Amino acid sequence: MAKRIITISREFGSGGRFIGEEVAKKLGIAYYDKDIIGRIAEQSGFAPEYIQENAELSPKKGLFAYAFSGRDITGKSVEDMVYEAQRKVILEIAEKESCVIIGRNADFILRDRADVLNVFIHGNMPEKVQRICRLYHVTEADAIKMINDTNKRRRANYNFYTEQKWGMAENYTLSLNSSVLGYDMCQKIIMDCVK
Amino acid sequence: MAKRIITISREFGSGGRFIGEEVAKKLGIAYYDKDIIGRIAEQSGFAPEYIQENAELSPKKGLFAYAFSGRDITGKSVEDMVYEAQRKVILEIAEKESCVIIGRNADFILRDRADVLNVFIHGNMPEKVQRICRLYHVTEADAIKMINDTNKRRRANYNFYTEQKWGMAENYTLSLNSSVLGYDMCQKIIMDCVK
Repeated sequence: MAKRIITISREFGSGGRFIGEEVAKKLGIAYYDKDIIGRIAEQSGFAPEYIQENAELSPKKGLFAYAFSGRDITGKSVEDMVYEAQRKVILEIAEKESCVIIGRNADFILRDRADVLNVFIHGNMPEKVQRICRLYHVTEADAIKMINDTNKRRRANYNFYTEQKWGMAENYTLSLNSSVLGYDMCQKIIMDCVK
Repeated sequence: MAKRIITISREFGSGGRFIGEEVAKKLGIAYYDKDIIGRIAEQSGFAPEYIQENAELSPKKGLFAYAFSGRDITGKSVEDMVYEAQRKVILEIAEKESCVIIGRNADFILRDRADVLNVFIHGNMPEKVQRICRLYHVTEADAIKMINDTNKRRRANYNFYTEQKWGMAENYTLSLNSSVLGYDMCQKIIMDCVK
């Protein structure tokens, strides 16, 4: 079946966001990344700033925070409510139009659709560090810390809500090392797979 | 750097071996799969039948067998000696010629070379079961058992000798779901990446 939705999961610093944005432009389809936050905020009633901080990343306290965070009378934590809003927004978007969706466990949320290409972009540490230094104007040591912390939180969020393991090849249709292949080749491969 | 060696790791039933063989034919380069066994036998002094059974798969007893199996005066087990012979053979082959190498932890063994494209081929259970039923003339239940057992032994062997996790996207340059993409598209992507 032809693929009309592309989800991009990615390691921090791997350029996955950039690759996804370029693919969306070249294919002339919608691109959802940070702009999805406003919709989740609307759906959930939480402030956009709160969603930005919480919808994709695990709480800074770590994975166990999910299990032990405060729950309302229905047994749902605030994180669960944000996640549920995010899930609804992603399902609606997928129903509505062809698009690229960055992160947010969209691969798992859309797992019952046959028209989704799930991509994971990863890379080698030296190239990821360089990229983060350049984009965020930080030292190498800070870049390494940012990469490790962000990936740790993405992993914890993904593993908690999907019961799959973040970064396992079997979750994705395609996994690509952007440091070895280059960003252009990653874009080409993704576009070849949706044609 | 241009890639002249392609390693293919694969889930049992995913068609990874077939895809690798086709790529080697189309590129006109050497293909190493079962024929590597004779060389490992020669190198190690063990019988080819023994290598066939042990060089890529963990002992049937399971992962802990590695740790507790009999060791000679140097502290090496028979499995370690076979693995060392396999490692030497793969390093020699890579030095000598462009080729496709199926399995045998070649991605890890050749990790210090920049001219290697590491590929992992995986697939969905229904398609893998169908393939194994057709190739081995077994029932679906037997196919499922074969798939699970073989992958378990490949995983145990890989994880023990590489200290990486079999099937994690980060180990490979490319990971492809052959059930979703089709064998032809997998071949095309691999060939595009070595051109």
